[in-house]
Amino acid sequence: MIDAHMDFNDDMAPEVSLIIPAAGDSTRMGMTKRKPWLPLGGVPIILRTLSVFKEIDWVKEIVLVVNEQDEAEARGPQWEELRRHGVTMIVTGAENRAMSVFNGLQVTDPAAEVIAIHDAVRPFVSADTCKALFRTASKRGAAIPVTPVTDTIKRVEGDKVIDTPQRVGMMAVQTPQCFRREVLVEAYEYAFKTDGISDNITDDSSLVEQYGQEVSVILSSSDNIKITTKEDLVLAGSMLKAGLV
Amino acid sequence: MIDAHMDFNDDMAPEVSLIIPAAGDSTRMGMTKRKPWLPLGGVPIILRTLSVFKEIDWVKEIVLVVNEQDEAEARGPQWEELRRHGVTMIVTGAENRAMSVFNGLQVTDPAAEVIAIHDAVRPFVSADTCKALFRTASKRGAAIPVTPVTDTIKRVEGDKVIDTPQRVGMMAVQTPQCFRREVLVEAYEYAFKTDGISDNITDDSSLVEQYGQEVSVILSSSDNIKITTKEDLVLAGSMLKAGLV
Repeated sequence: MIDAHMDFNDDMAPEVSLIIPAAGDSTRMGMTKRKPWLPLGGVPIILRTLSVFKEIDWVKEIVLVVNEQDEAEARGPQWEELRRHGVTMIVTGAENRAMSVFNGLQVTDPAAEVIAIHDAVRPFVSADTCKALFRTASKRGAAIPVTPVTDTIKRVEGDKVIDTPQRVGMMAVQTPQCFRREVLVEAYEYAFKTDGISDNITDDSSLVEQYGQEVSVILSSSDNIKITTKEDLVLAGSMLKAGLV
Repeated sequence: MIDAHMDFNDDMAPEVSLIIPAAGDSTRMGMTKRKPWLPLGGVPIILRTLSVFKEIDWVKEIVLVVNEQDEAEARGPQWEELRRHGVTMIVTGAENRAMSVFNGLQVTDPAAEVIAIHDAVRPFVSADTCKALFRTASKRGAAIPVTPVTDTIKRVEGDKVIDTPQRVGMMAVQTPQCFRREVLVEAYEYAFKTDGISDNITDDSSLVEQYGQEVSVILSSSDNIKITTKEDLVLAGSMLKAGLV
């Protein structure tokens, strides 16, 4: 596995366009405020997330994809803060994640070598991991961050166990997922021509895998959590307080 | 899927022997104190775990399996507190989890209908979930608590993704895992006669599945976390403070 702490030469740095899909609803949190805007240690999660990428000068632009209902606010009262945190464009989301990312992809600079897609609610990703991913995507076409699965997993049908898959090699996927620009563009073209883009596409690399592109993995930290439940928000707050991130 | 909140008739309650394997080392925590004895909100994790089962009067005995090095302490200075929290017996662990559980099984009362095996470091399991598991194991032979997997999972070989298994039906397994006594005894006999007991057996129901016994699942809460890392301990503390458990 490729180590996130490998030393990469900055003069070999690819130019990166970052897409942040933030168009999901917040039903799982049971709150009216969009998840990315919930405060974490006094700062909205999305601004913490953006800050990580603002510090990496390989990232040339950041496209934020928002819900239609949130667009006026993002372009209005929130805009100055978003811009200061590196956002260069706002686009409207679509009916599912993959189509929202596609909308973002349309407005990215065709000159950028790598497209990175990152969850708005993963504020603890490290810059080292991001750089390793950008670099590997540039060299190999596609790179995603993973951590080993620690739970025993079973496949269940109805109320019965039907299989206990071997845990060896089972990895949980995080973001940013990174692709050479033309690989992602071609993967979308291929998906439109074949199965279409369905709601089942829970991560961006699936599209690219279906297209036949090999995807490299980078071992990432379990600290790079996705904040989707109240428990996650509590955990994230404690991780900050305890100085773990 | 069977709901943990189904109403079970207390007069139909099976008698339960509980085995708690606490013989693992604490290397992942990077601490000298055994994980089960780390304080959580001022109370050792193991005592919190025991308290849950002490309140369920279906549980007739609790066998605690400890490391050889910890045995003197468990039988000495810790004994009074363990006893007050429902522990009826201490046994010595073995080279792996499954063999430690087997040691515990040897001393359980043959009259008990159900054997439950619970991680020492899962203090937040609910009594409702436990009762649903005990009842289902009694009726069907084997029952385990599960929660849906929320991450996208990939199978990785070397540094490449080789498969993205469908997330539908993928469940993460928790404890207590519960079995009719004779099912578990026969599953061990079968394992000794065939493949033996290996370190790869990460959950008790695998043994029973290999023996050919159907295993039922009960939908459990994601609150029933296993405290294995410093982050988990921080999370557990926050869940307590926030009144989530």
